[in-house]
Amino acid sequence: MILIDGQPGDKVSALDRGLHYGDGVFETIAIINGMPLCLDAHLRRLRNGCRVLGISAPETQILSAEVRQITAGTVRAVLKIIVTRGAGGRGYQPPPESTPVRILSIHPWPDYPADHRSSGVEAAFCDFVLARQPALAGIKHLNRLEQVLARAEVAGRKCPEGFVSDPSGAIIEGTMSNVFMRCGNLLITPGLQDCGVAGIIRAEIIDRAAGLGLETRVQRIDRADLLAAEEVFFSNSIIGIWPVRRAGAHQYRRAEIAPGLDSALVEAGCIVPP
Amino acid sequence: MILIDGQPGDKVSALDRGLHYGDGVFETIAIINGMPLCLDAHLRRLRNGCRVLGISAPETQILSAEVRQITAGTVRAVLKIIVTRGAGGRGYQPPPESTPVRILSIHPWPDYPADHRSSGVEAAFCDFVLARQPALAGIKHLNRLEQVLARAEVAGRKCPEGFVSDPSGAIIEGTMSNVFMRCGNLLITPGLQDCGVAGIIRAEIIDRAAGLGLETRVQRIDRADLLAAEEVFFSNSIIGIWPVRRAGAHQYRRAEIAPGLDSALVEAGCIVPP
Repeated sequence: MILIDGQPGDKVSALDRGLHYGDGVFETIAIINGMPLCLDAHLRRLRNGCRVLGISAPETQILSAEVRQITAGTVRAVLKIIVTRGAGGRGYQPPPESTPVRILSIHPWPDYPADHRSSGVEAAFCDFVLARQPALAGIKHLNRLEQVLARAEVAGRKCPEGFVSDPSGAIIEGTMSNVFMRCGNLLITPGLQDCGVAGIIRAEIIDRAAGLGLETRVQRIDRADLLAAEEVFFSNSIIGIWPVRRAGAHQYRRAEIAPGLDSALVEAGCIVPP
Repeated sequence: MILIDGQPGDKVSALDRGLHYGDGVFETIAIINGMPLCLDAHLRRLRNGCRVLGISAPETQILSAEVRQITAGTVRAVLKIIVTRGAGGRGYQPPPESTPVRILSIHPWPDYPADHRSSGVEAAFCDFVLARQPALAGIKHLNRLEQVLARAEVAGRKCPEGFVSDPSGAIIEGTMSNVFMRCGNLLITPGLQDCGVAGIIRAEIIDRAAGLGLETRVQRIDRADLLAAEEVFFSNSIIGIWPVRRAGAHQYRRAEIAPGLDSALVEAGCIVPP
């Protein structure tokens, strides 16, 4: 099921700048029993991404109505919202007046094995390195070749997820998720001022950590820090939390806070139950 | 006029990975009297870009036939060829078997003022900085938000073109072109191992420089070097050569080699006559 500017359809203009330049932003939202999770936060990030790119964001009322329309009756699915700058403009230069295009699509719930969430995953250290682009960092724009290449690398290594670093070797995120590590009661996640996507669940975890007796810091994580941590996990809106069982050759002990954090996020309606 | 996988049409699948991730490559080719200029070089770069991204490139015979079909009867136009990885795959990960999509479109010749080519242009130094991503440098992929933002900056400054730099301050290219500078009989253009697009006309200029008594070097250019040069110009497949009349506050003397180089490229059938 796809809605394009509110109308059922499955095609977009071959001149859309989303296709030509990746000139747009997107969100990936978990749907359970017709309910989109963390919708406000996703729409806020979408609007912020539009602002950064100078795209006039669709009205929230319109988007919300389309979300209601497309999610009605879905039991467990993924909703993707794409907003592009629309068609037109000569070359790279954005046209002075463009009409953004909204593309909402429903996708089957991904079939990740259930034990990724309960027992954790093996994670690779990607050779692929993220570029530093502060002008685009944090937002979920449509220029995702870095993630496509990093994800292909992780798949080639038969790992469900992998760590990607910036050129200085700082770990930034997973190929499709954010990264946290815990040392005692200190929870650390990398800053995203130069690269990476500011995940909705990442923000929820930072908000909720204090309630679980954790102190949160946003700071640089090197590979050695990660290997010295007591616990490491990935987060995103669809997977929830995946504890890291093994990173490269290093084995972690049983996750201590990840399960409780995952349950708290489920209870708060941020992620779907396992 | 648009051909999608060889069929006239104006829409592509809303699930195409070109739209979702910028997962593809493109070429922009000058057409004069039905003849695409430097077609072999453009198709070679397209194939190379596909190889870098792991997309199985369309057969050259098929693409060539479609180019012939769509350009027949055009007097002076721009042909854009996009090749995407096609639809599908769960998330960023490229599907193991995907069917690339070919999108050929004809666009009106841009109405740049004729004196840009004869008398030169005023060029801005962009505040926007290119990220260093060696894995994607050189190829003409669909992740072009950097160019969209840089081009918007240049338009805001009312300049026809501008210089973009890497984070170290090295000038890399124009927002839609390559850059050359001349000191005596030395012609210098920046290396593109970390960012930038390896232009077809850039390669033609490097090939032809010796015949015009110039020695070519591919090396770092800082802003101070550019301002100290005797002559600076931009090149691409559509504009040909635009001498730089002024860069920021600095005024250049009359271009000495740019006009001859432009004529040589016209004569060789690489660019259209003014």
